[in-house]
Amino acid sequence: MKDIVNMYYPKINNNESIKYATRILNRIEKLSKISENKNNTTRLYLSIEHIKTNKIVEKWMKLAGMQTWQDQVGNIYGRYEACTKKQPAILLGSHLDTVPNAGKYDGILGVLTSIEVVNHLNKNKIHLKKAIEIVGFADEEGTRFGITLLGSKALTNKWKKKWLNYKDKNKITIAHAMKNIGLNTNKICLAKRNTKDIKAYIELHIEQGPYLYKNNSSMGVVSAINGAKRINCTFTGESGHAGTVPIYMRKDPLIATSEWILFIENELLKSKTKIVATIGKINCYPGATNVIPNKIKLTLDIRGPKNNELNKTISNILKKAKEISKKRNIIFNSKKYYSTKSIKCNKKIKNIIKKTINKTQGNCPSLASGAGHDAISMAKKWPIGMIFIRCIKGISHSPKEKVLKKDIIKTIKTYMEIIYNLTEKI
Amino acid sequence: MKDIVNMYYPKINNNESIKYATRILNRIEKLSKISENKNNTTRLYLSIEHIKTNKIVEKWMKLAGMQTWQDQVGNIYGRYEACTKKQPAILLGSHLDTVPNAGKYDGILGVLTSIEVVNHLNKNKIHLKKAIEIVGFADEEGTRFGITLLGSKALTNKWKKKWLNYKDKNKITIAHAMKNIGLNTNKICLAKRNTKDIKAYIELHIEQGPYLYKNNSSMGVVSAINGAKRINCTFTGESGHAGTVPIYMRKDPLIATSEWILFIENELLKSKTKIVATIGKINCYPGATNVIPNKIKLTLDIRGPKNNELNKTISNILKKAKEISKKRNIIFNSKKYYSTKSIKCNKKIKNIIKKTINKTQGNCPSLASGAGHDAISMAKKWPIGMIFIRCIKGISHSPKEKVLKKDIIKTIKTYMEIIYNLTEKI
Repeated sequence: MKDIVNMYYPKINNNESIKYATRILNRIEKLSKISENKNNTTRLYLSIEHIKTNKIVEKWMKLAGMQTWQDQVGNIYGRYEACTKKQPAILLGSHLDTVPNAGKYDGILGVLTSIEVVNHLNKNKIHLKKAIEIVGFADEEGTRFGITLLGSKALTNKWKKKWLNYKDKNKITIAHAMKNIGLNTNKICLAKRNTKDIKAYIELHIEQGPYLYKNNSSMGVVSAINGAKRINCTFTGESGHAGTVPIYMRKDPLIATSEWILFIENELLKSKTKIVATIGKINCYPGATNVIPNKIKLTLDIRGPKNNELNKTISNILKKAKEISKKRNIIFNSKKYYSTKSIKCNKKIKNIIKKTINKTQGNCPSLASGAGHDAISMAKKWPIGMIFIRCIKGISHSPKEKVLKKDIIKTIKTYMEIIYNLTEKI
Repeated sequence: MKDIVNMYYPKINNNESIKYATRILNRIEKLSKISENKNNTTRLYLSIEHIKTNKIVEKWMKLAGMQTWQDQVGNIYGRYEACTKKQPAILLGSHLDTVPNAGKYDGILGVLTSIEVVNHLNKNKIHLKKAIEIVGFADEEGTRFGITLLGSKALTNKWKKKWLNYKDKNKITIAHAMKNIGLNTNKICLAKRNTKDIKAYIELHIEQGPYLYKNNSSMGVVSAINGAKRINCTFTGESGHAGTVPIYMRKDPLIATSEWILFIENELLKSKTKIVATIGKINCYPGATNVIPNKIKLTLDIRGPKNNELNKTISNILKKAKEISKKRNIIFNSKKYYSTKSIKCNKKIKNIIKKTINKTQGNCPSLASGAGHDAISMAKKWPIGMIFIRCIKGISHSPKEKVLKKDIIKTIKTYMEIIYNLTEKI
């Protein structure tokens, strides 16, 4: 390890930020080509493309003056020491895998921007009070094996042995896929990180929603990552001939469903909870033009930043479904099949981020993340903070995903200051 | 032809009506067994079962003292002369074909009850002022070839030559199926009936809806057969991540649809038009739990007894869909793909039926038929009247279809009087 020398305020000037942003965008283009398909970006966990991406990112980390290694589940790491030796690290990161037919920025932008920040420190021979580590997580999306956050879960020792038998669509198990790319399934536990070695986890990520876009802001601070519940619901009524049963005699579950959907919208619009709910699937039985439906099956996806509020809202919504059903002589049933709790971002970190963005941007929107992130796993062990960068029209998980260069320029300057402030204050 | 002798009021007494109703129910059981499947009743146009049924019904017509014949599209007829020769006929009838997995009474009950009435006349050597003809129509449901009313359309010369090429699910054309059972496709035009030979068409049928059941009445008079329109509708909004798009920013077509469905229900409940509307099919795209829908496709089936009211209501409903969509930044499109006009029952006949039912039942509910019937075709050429008999819970097109024996007993007495009155007064 080379000697640690300078220690001063690491400001990025305009020219530098343009240069860094240009490089980030070039690298994003390069990574977007590493795909199992020619015509779009699809990069799955434990694939050839995964390892290829790790190699390239590792090279960029090295160019930024970092020591690098790949851990036992395929996460790629870089470390840049503090001004004094053996300091715990501020861990910066996000993921390098993608959904099928993905955007270029989701996850990747956070990793590459972090590398530029370290590169700036290294170029100016600046070492901060804490070490900086960067992680490119191997699996956040869960596209290949149906389990999300396989990369970050290894750090907190939450990997379950049974997952090794989970299969992808080609019947290849995780164990088999790991071996294929040279990972030793017996050593997964070694990917665990000691609590004391990491001071905080910071994730820069595109918003994946339209909040910043509509509010005309480049950046915002994340207050929490929403808890999410998914519930299968069924309204059961009575079928009948579409021509012969008078409206007032019907037990039409689709009308009950409609009343309920409007209630949900109205409840959420008038509440101040930032809870969102979506009915994304609806099926109607028997499903004939001239037959009154007797059954509606639907899924309710509901998310919110505060667990107690979320649970209360769900309880209200389900109660209303029962009320509507009772009034209409219909039966309502529901079954929750997926549940994650909301994660609060660390207050101190959040304030540091907020203050810094406020300084560079003039304002700092604070918003909860509706989407899941690696920070969810990391929060089990470490204080976390997240910065969102605007994506155009809020579009994500799509080749239409886009981030403006001017936003990256602005963000990289701010991000440098945030990291500096964090190393000073936490 | 034997001489025409008696001419007096043909009342059916209690014992007789029980005997007749018992025979009707036995015959209904017998016909329900003539099916292409062992376990349910499925009897399609131009099938072996069709011809077998015609033979049996023809035998029963003969036993009731009728002259019989099968016409060129496979309808089975019986004729019972008036007290003077060459009189036009009151044509009584309904259909002998069924939907798949059908009830036993739909159509069949009308034909068999008519036979009992003629049987009663014949037994008592009564001939009325008009001839009585009975027709067992060969195809009302349109199950096999997708065109309804193939039996009755032949009587009014509405058969189209191109239909001969229409195929069933086994790719057998109507032409081929006709030849298979010995019908000559060149002679279909001979099934046409002269206007002057038929004075009126009267159809006794199960209601297929719950109106009489809920109103605790055995019988009712039909005021009209509803016109029906079917419209394909699409609400197109904007997809998005279920977790990241705030409720107030969404363009969720399912919520627009829900608002519209409730509007339709509310409009019809407060209107006095007896119009019914059904959304029987609804599909949601892309249809993922965690994705806000961007498209809802649905079918609107709407029916009413008065054409102008129906058109006005449809226009209002579609206007509202556009208003809701505009308000929600969503696009609404609709396309009508099926349309029949409503048919009014003949006023004079209706009044005769009503007066008679009033006399025997103490009241006479008047209702529009939401379902289609052979009477729709017949009305193109002749005055029509319809009598509905209660079916339990309004269930039809199902093996659960049920008619009470006591209702048949009551109906057969009333039906006899109605026919007598018609022969006297029209």
